[in-house]
Amino acid sequence: MQATVSKKVLNSFRKIIKSSDVNRLMEKTSNMHPADIAEIMKDLEFEEAEFIYKNLGEEKASGILVHIEEEMRERILGSLSSKEIAEDLDGLESDDAADVISELPPEQKEEVISHLEDKEQKSDIVNLLSYAEGTAGSLMAKELIRVNHNWTVLKCVKEMRRQVEEIKTVYSVYVVDDNNILLGLLSLKRMLVSPAENKISDIYNPNIISVKTSTLSEEVAQIIEKYDIVVVPVVDEEGHLMGRITIDDVVDVIRKEETEDIHKMGGMQALEDSYSSTSVYSMVKKRGLWLMILFAGEGLTATAMAFFEDQLAKAVVLAFFVPLIISSGGNTGSQATTLITRALALNEISTNDWWKVLKKEVLSGFFLGLGLGLLGFVRVFIWSSFVNIYGDHWALIGITVFISLMGVVMWGNIMGAILPLFLKRMGLDPAVSSAPFVATLVDVTGIIIYFVTATFMLKGILL
Amino acid sequence: MQATVSKKVLNSFRKIIKSSDVNRLMEKTSNMHPADIAEIMKDLEFEEAEFIYKNLGEEKASGILVHIEEEMRERILGSLSSKEIAEDLDGLESDDAADVISELPPEQKEEVISHLEDKEQKSDIVNLLSYAEGTAGSLMAKELIRVNHNWTVLKCVKEMRRQVEEIKTVYSVYVVDDNNILLGLLSLKRMLVSPAENKISDIYNPNIISVKTSTLSEEVAQIIEKYDIVVVPVVDEEGHLMGRITIDDVVDVIRKEETEDIHKMGGMQALEDSYSSTSVYSMVKKRGLWLMILFAGEGLTATAMAFFEDQLAKAVVLAFFVPLIISSGGNTGSQATTLITRALALNEISTNDWWKVLKKEVLSGFFLGLGLGLLGFVRVFIWSSFVNIYGDHWALIGITVFISLMGVVMWGNIMGAILPLFLKRMGLDPAVSSAPFVATLVDVTGIIIYFVTATFMLKGILL
Repeated sequence: MQATVSKKVLNSFRKIIKSSDVNRLMEKTSNMHPADIAEIMKDLEFEEAEFIYKNLGEEKASGILVHIEEEMRERILGSLSSKEIAEDLDGLESDDAADVISELPPEQKEEVISHLEDKEQKSDIVNLLSYAEGTAGSLMAKELIRVNHNWTVLKCVKEMRRQVEEIKTVYSVYVVDDNNILLGLLSLKRMLVSPAENKISDIYNPNIISVKTSTLSEEVAQIIEKYDIVVVPVVDEEGHLMGRITIDDVVDVIRKEETEDIHKMGGMQALEDSYSSTSVYSMVKKRGLWLMILFAGEGLTATAMAFFEDQLAKAVVLAFFVPLIISSGGNTGSQATTLITRALALNEISTNDWWKVLKKEVLSGFFLGLGLGLLGFVRVFIWSSFVNIYGDHWALIGITVFISLMGVVMWGNIMGAILPLFLKRMGLDPAVSSAPFVATLVDVTGIIIYFVTATFMLKGILL
Repeated sequence: MQATVSKKVLNSFRKIIKSSDVNRLMEKTSNMHPADIAEIMKDLEFEEAEFIYKNLGEEKASGILVHIEEEMRERILGSLSSKEIAEDLDGLESDDAADVISELPPEQKEEVISHLEDKEQKSDIVNLLSYAEGTAGSLMAKELIRVNHNWTVLKCVKEMRRQVEEIKTVYSVYVVDDNNILLGLLSLKRMLVSPAENKISDIYNPNIISVKTSTLSEEVAQIIEKYDIVVVPVVDEEGHLMGRITIDDVVDVIRKEETEDIHKMGGMQALEDSYSSTSVYSMVKKRGLWLMILFAGEGLTATAMAFFEDQLAKAVVLAFFVPLIISSGGNTGSQATTLITRALALNEISTNDWWKVLKKEVLSGFFLGLGLGLLGFVRVFIWSSFVNIYGDHWALIGITVFISLMGVVMWGNIMGAILPLFLKRMGLDPAVSSAPFVATLVDVTGIIIYFVTATFMLKGILL
């Protein structure tokens, strides 16, 4: 995520790799975080990165697997046997290991799983792989601390000591009954200050927020954000404790969600993979459909202009301002739709606020239209002082441009603001009302507004 | 964040408020999370929300302060005395309390601080308010567990028991020397499994990732994401442990960052506050400047079209296709710039990849242009079969439209892809290359491509 790696660091690694100096590599990386090594690998050629990966030893290698880019991970895993992959997965938490396995080709998945030596890890991963993508089940990790409500604090500490051996980080201590039904949370604080003979059932906190294995990832993100928590337990339909999700995994969900929204707002279907991993073929597919829809809509501008053929033939000068006027409406509408779509996504406004939004945008649209309209008039005035392009009627043309800009900008602003609210109310994704979509809508009406104004203003004079 | 509150729940609250039934209110909210109460308040009239806030008691009230919307918080705080505010802040963690105080009018800040009863809280907040907005210092909380490297595990547990009294949640245990210099991290795991007489210095982990008080919030977010951690300690320039930042605060930073990017990509300056809290005046200011810049750029389309006045006068039919052709270039460019800007923001690509990007986008542009070009030709063909609008030369016009679309779409795609890379390389924000910005650039060149093609194809025939 951070800025690029310095040339100096890259070169020192290149030198080590060129001389195949494994000892020097081990020494240099011994105190480095896997995420930093992954960052360096990203800037190296694949063969160089592969050399690093294969010579670092299992422990570091597994850390790198998590932090490396999708594309490179795929290539590296492709160069390993199923047994080697299983070994490298050994040091990972169950959710990360399951993620790596889920990306493998179907026939290799089973093979890698069969090579896993740790029986508990194996069954954890098989369980995790059984949940549908995009649900809490597929997002959770199995590693957690679980204590029985009948235990004393002393027994609890002893049991935690045993359980913690197999866990990297303790996020929360969950309290369950004899049937593994989640009852609540034991805060470290309460445990530290309670006498050793106290029963857990007397000190645990039963007000616990949990999600189900079937809860959608986006909802998990919303819940974690809403309640400001860093880890949430996952239960099945009957309430059995199945795993936990930490907020760092949710951050990835948020990033993905935002990327999808941004792609849609750019006037295309969202890519599923990263830009680099997406082929030209699937890129053209994701973009082409929307471009064709927009093209079909924009085709109406040709129809509208053909309708005003007579006016155009009499005063070609009118044609000059068509792009300027309609694009001003499009730009204003693009701003409005961006603002409203984002505010909806952040729940700053809801569809019930449409009246408030409309009032605000009619007012903003008025001032923006006024500004652009004046600018348009001034442009006609200045130009006509130098060249006689608009003839004697420059002022009338200027006023036509002014009125049209006011109308088009206000119209674009209203459409851009209302469209996402309308889509949301219809149960559709407001992000679909992209800048290009609104611009296309506004272009057609913009031409009509412009030519009607012109006909009215210039009738009997130019037309 | 979650879906709207049901009408039934809202009405039951309205009823309680109408009858001023404080007991019933206490009963109903006793098991509710402050975030849920805040959500209900959002959907009520201000006076109703105020009634809830003022009758819930300090403890719940402080929780609500954190979860409530900015606008309502401002209004509620405005109706409280400085002393009341200070009392409600008592239950909050230092970072949340400092956030609330920092939003108060300058003259009230000091007054509220002077009313804080807890001396430690007071000095913590004063310290937090001293850091510049947008830095780790302003983001961190002071509450943390701090142990000395010379202590034994036993002493450490005792001290933790004391420190934990004043802390809500234990995220990490930080190890410092006698001068409060951060040395490392003590994992709960190591503490649980180590004998009571062991010294902390023998068991703590010195490989710790930390940030400085002056580190920018965006960088803190990047570090937390990169290393997949949920909490990061904050040190001053000399390495003294000053506080810690949890990932839930970073999620807000990420959301804000994304919102800024999205606003810029929509062709405007980013709003500083939420949509609802932004006045029409500041909205028009944020949007107007960009609209005027775009207008000035788009003005060149009128110049370009005036340049081709003769052609237009001879064949008015040419004007019909201007919006269709230039907007196709704009739409394609908008997709490309969205894709590349987002990929840059996620560090999926860097400016060094410009050659790879260019190759990919030339190819995508070719296929998209081919598709739209054929569509354009077919449109002219079908239309000319019904109306004699294009005369005998419909095929030539169709071919002109086809070639122009291919050229404009490819050109738009290349510009849209290269512009964000260029801006980034220049040290500017790539998000500035918004859809409207690229569309404006492409419109002018689109007109030139179209009329040059037309002149070439139709010379001596229509022109």
